[in-house]
Amino acid sequence: MSSTAGQVIKCKAAVAWEAGKPLSIEQVEVAPPLAGEVRLKILFTSLCHTDVYFWEAKGQAPLFPRIFGHEAGGVVESVGEGVTHLKPGDQALPVFTGECGECPHCKSEESNMCDLLRINTDRGVMLSDGKTRFSKNGQPIYHFLGTSTFSEFTVVHAGCVAKINPAAPLDKVCLLSCGICTGLGATINVAKPKPGSTVAVFGLGAVGLAACEGARISGASKIIGVDLVNSRFEEAKKFGVTDFVNPKEHDKPVQEVIAEMTNGGVDRAVECTGSIQAMISAFECVHDGWGVAVLVGVPSKDDAFKTHPMNFLNERTLKGTFYGNYKPRTDLPSVVEKYMKGELELEKFITHRVTFSEINKAFDYMLKGQSIRCIIRMEE
Amino acid sequence: MSSTAGQVIKCKAAVAWEAGKPLSIEQVEVAPPLAGEVRLKILFTSLCHTDVYFWEAKGQAPLFPRIFGHEAGGVVESVGEGVTHLKPGDQALPVFTGECGECPHCKSEESNMCDLLRINTDRGVMLSDGKTRFSKNGQPIYHFLGTSTFSEFTVVHAGCVAKINPAAPLDKVCLLSCGICTGLGATINVAKPKPGSTVAVFGLGAVGLAACEGARISGASKIIGVDLVNSRFEEAKKFGVTDFVNPKEHDKPVQEVIAEMTNGGVDRAVECTGSIQAMISAFECVHDGWGVAVLVGVPSKDDAFKTHPMNFLNERTLKGTFYGNYKPRTDLPSVVEKYMKGELELEKFITHRVTFSEINKAFDYMLKGQSIRCIIRMEE
Repeated sequence: MSSTAGQVIKCKAAVAWEAGKPLSIEQVEVAPPLAGEVRLKILFTSLCHTDVYFWEAKGQAPLFPRIFGHEAGGVVESVGEGVTHLKPGDQALPVFTGECGECPHCKSEESNMCDLLRINTDRGVMLSDGKTRFSKNGQPIYHFLGTSTFSEFTVVHAGCVAKINPAAPLDKVCLLSCGICTGLGATINVAKPKPGSTVAVFGLGAVGLAACEGARISGASKIIGVDLVNSRFEEAKKFGVTDFVNPKEHDKPVQEVIAEMTNGGVDRAVECTGSIQAMISAFECVHDGWGVAVLVGVPSKDDAFKTHPMNFLNERTLKGTFYGNYKPRTDLPSVVEKYMKGELELEKFITHRVTFSEINKAFDYMLKGQSIRCIIRMEE
Repeated sequence: MSSTAGQVIKCKAAVAWEAGKPLSIEQVEVAPPLAGEVRLKILFTSLCHTDVYFWEAKGQAPLFPRIFGHEAGGVVESVGEGVTHLKPGDQALPVFTGECGECPHCKSEESNMCDLLRINTDRGVMLSDGKTRFSKNGQPIYHFLGTSTFSEFTVVHAGCVAKINPAAPLDKVCLLSCGICTGLGATINVAKPKPGSTVAVFGLGAVGLAACEGARISGASKIIGVDLVNSRFEEAKKFGVTDFVNPKEHDKPVQEVIAEMTNGGVDRAVECTGSIQAMISAFECVHDGWGVAVLVGVPSKDDAFKTHPMNFLNERTLKGTFYGNYKPRTDLPSVVEKYMKGELELEKFITHRVTFSEINKAFDYMLKGQSIRCIIRMEE
């Protein structure tokens, strides 16, 4: 066991004291893990839109002070009672959703929506005792998504920690904790395009580009990127995108434009924007007889998906996915191996790198739309 | 070749001269098949709601005089030029949709929606020359669904004729031409319930009961029949239905009732009514994580399927199917074998039998809701 096991660790964390205000690097106290928990030393983290969304707190009840961060890689510092699949020193990825291994979802081959450890954006405390493991001068600091990786040390439910290849470079595979797996799995695990098929991807942000990367890896012959920003096409070519459609540049629905480009529709479509209109277009642009559309982007609370039922009866399929249908503990090691073998190219997603003290720059890059992913190195 | 090959055949047919008026048994003339066509001697036919719907002609342009009928079994009398997969004497089932074998749909493993021979309810003539093969005293009589089986002889595109086991009893397997395969395939080929799973079927008419039969054959442990008519439950038990829900008897949405009965939702649902509300309920009653709903019933022209997109993102799947995803020529022989081996029980669907001269009785039974299927024997 490490010398810090069982002790409170004092370390640096980037604390969000108020909605929308720059994070402040502070010394915080991190309590040891309780039973079923793991304390991780975070080495690299990156910034995802979901962090920014809850930091801005425009659409939900604010919960502050809070430590954000959920895309990260680190090393196990110590484990709580009963944790057997991890030991100090293991390389690991914390994940915002988990795998208890016991519930009907974990036992199902098809689901990754664990009943116990499913994503909960409202909860700011640990499941076991309803308390935080972070504090500063006795004041509790809330967790985010059960991961809070904008801290040199964090405590995570063991079911949310995937043990990975010790040789994997954490400054790259840390991206697999969220966005990249979400898009990649939507294509590979859910849409499942066959080699030579046509795929449309709506939204060319990080998740959409990961969906394109999944189509490229699957051997799709035509990958149509759909986005409102023309400049994204050039970057998207690196991810296999062969054709580009900007819906604003056409005077007919984008699903009709795509049908004309593909002799009746694409074989597969993946929606990564969360726009309800894009969801409907993504479904209606797949070919009758065999087309499959997959929804990834998170809609607004009051949205309604609406289409004529004949679009289904003509043998189209609509599915949704959460975290690319990956079960964190079971499946992440093999995604890391896909990177190690050179099949999955993670470097392309990394447009910026900063040190932990510069973390607010990562927010700037994202808010200005300049970055795909910015890697934050915890050690200065 | 038979002695009638190449000749016009005079025979009896049940002609619909006007919308909604009783059929009239008349002597008609049936021209020989052209290239790519087959002339069949029909031995047994049955009546399906689609016949009645177009005979009533309340929702579409009337096309009369017309010979209805599309669920049938017969024997090949003669074949036109170029037809190689059938020869005189073969037992065969004519089907309202076809399989050209050449188009992208026929070449796809997933689709049965042949570009050339896909169902066309408006067309009353043969594809090759745009003419009818039926006439009476020189007046053309229109075809229906390319099959027109309410005639002792009929001419059908060869791509719409499945050659089947010569030992199969046509007075039973004739049912596989339409409704039974539609429901059976929706469950077996599309919903694909695993043994021990829970299945809800909306609508307990012939197609819905066939969907139940598919669930029973698949080994489902709980089959929930949903129907507005309580008396249908007793009959449905023969098709494996274990539980019954009448949405009118509950003061909450039927999807909530089903979720409570099944610990969160059924594994699979099959919608066989065509009611848009039933379609939405069928989708929303499947379990998150792995639930699959399949739409079979044909909606109205102006219907809109509407649901919150989170229902998809929580890993539910919605698919539609046409004729149970069976390719007529490729797949029907194996469905016939399933009957021959005793796995599929067709007798349960047959509630009435009449002779050809009594064909209007079959309409009465259906209009009064008394029959599941009424078999019409062509030979008196």
